[in-house]
Amino acid sequence: MTTLVYNDKRRNNYDHFLDLLDQTHINRYQDFNITFEYKKLAEQMLSECEFMDACSLEEKQKLFNEIKIKHLYQGQVLYSRNQDCRELIIVLSGVLKLGWNSYDGKYLIHRFIPTGALLNIVYLISESALEHEYVAHEATVIATIPEHIFKYTIQHNSRMLYQVLKLVCQRTRLLDNDIYHTSTQPLKVQIARQLIYLIEFFSTQTQKGIEVLLKLSQENLAELLKISRQSIRKEIQWFVEEGIIETKYNHISVKDIDKLKALLH
Amino acid sequence: MTTLVYNDKRRNNYDHFLDLLDQTHINRYQDFNITFEYKKLAEQMLSECEFMDACSLEEKQKLFNEIKIKHLYQGQVLYSRNQDCRELIIVLSGVLKLGWNSYDGKYLIHRFIPTGALLNIVYLISESALEHEYVAHEATVIATIPEHIFKYTIQHNSRMLYQVLKLVCQRTRLLDNDIYHTSTQPLKVQIARQLIYLIEFFSTQTQKGIEVLLKLSQENLAELLKISRQSIRKEIQWFVEEGIIETKYNHISVKDIDKLKALLH
Repeated sequence: MTTLVYNDKRRNNYDHFLDLLDQTHINRYQDFNITFEYKKLAEQMLSECEFMDACSLEEKQKLFNEIKIKHLYQGQVLYSRNQDCRELIIVLSGVLKLGWNSYDGKYLIHRFIPTGALLNIVYLISESALEHEYVAHEATVIATIPEHIFKYTIQHNSRMLYQVLKLVCQRTRLLDNDIYHTSTQPLKVQIARQLIYLIEFFSTQTQKGIEVLLKLSQENLAELLKISRQSIRKEIQWFVEEGIIETKYNHISVKDIDKLKALLH
Repeated sequence: MTTLVYNDKRRNNYDHFLDLLDQTHINRYQDFNITFEYKKLAEQMLSECEFMDACSLEEKQKLFNEIKIKHLYQGQVLYSRNQDCRELIIVLSGVLKLGWNSYDGKYLIHRFIPTGALLNIVYLISESALEHEYVAHEATVIATIPEHIFKYTIQHNSRMLYQVLKLVCQRTRLLDNDIYHTSTQPLKVQIARQLIYLIEFFSTQTQKGIEVLLKLSQENLAELLKISRQSIRKEIQWFVEEGIIETKYNHISVKDIDKLKALLH
């Protein structure tokens, strides 16, 4: 079984993450006009990171004090590829997508980043420019923490530092697994894997099945799978005909999760 | 630092890629044909890692005491995918290749690992099974250090721990850059990038030009680029006709390094 999640909490079913999603789902659809509430949400999300367990109250407070909130409109470019980014990012609501422009003008998506996810540790620590472009896939709210305070904290708390190393290693392993799949697996398996990722991070259980809350056009799916729109249309048709998924107005519902999982073996 | 970098202030893709390579591997161009005692060589290579600078003599000695040497014959599988690996690996001589078997029976190469490179930190820290198969591409000698002593050392030395985190982040960035290139760049650029990687880690300067010391069949190149043998033959032919490289008996010589670099710009 492959691990598709960012955090290291072990789950063989969806309960754990759906719980987490439910929490963020409530937050997502509340009308947060006041930045103060987003700040509280950011503190809560940060507190849920494993590496924060090793933090003293004082250290936590110092990190919390530096939180800034940013509102992004749909399609807004937060960072470009090769740009320097000197802050840690937490997605509070909405979705960020990491991607690039291809040499032939196509846009390609590396990954959709869900709420609760921390971004940029790798680029802060390696002190390097970003490899991806960061775009708000929909209206999105993020929290930022400046580099210096994050680095200072982990450099003075070795238990926290070890947990950050562990988090980075788990993500690196996910990248290795990404490359394994794109290099060695047939397209249907790759699509199944992406759908499971979307279910894990962007879905809700309804009477009709598991609904992916992320709005995804066939073009978005093509960008994610790095194939042509014609190819993705044909493949998605196969998933629909097999009764695995249903698509309607840029939304995907999973009707047969077991069949989908079986494709990943 | 490599001799192939020009003093060009302008950062281009080539420089960017070299930065990535410099950060992720300790040494290049070293000639280890001289008969060494392998254990001494392992100690020397380990000492050259940046994270060892923070080590006390006593800590160093404890790590050194646990070094074991393994000799691998050409084609020997050191570890399979999904196997647990509870040791740090240093390549002392020869070449390891990290790869996988594809669903259709093809073999694919993720990366050739040169001498001096440390392997497995990510899998030790994330406590997970390997994503790659490790094979000796030629007769190869490795050193191993058991997981427990490495982890114990970094957990008790936060400066060293931070440097290990930095190393992992730099390598993760190289993976991000790998994915960027395979996803967005034309095949010729991808081939140029792989050739530059081979030059950086496996080459020597001769009267004839820059000779890649690694024995590489066209099949190996196809495995590395994840394309068919017919496609790689056609592409390599283009590089030969342009006067960029020469191939002879599974060896590549680079005749026009500037032209090769220009492809990455």
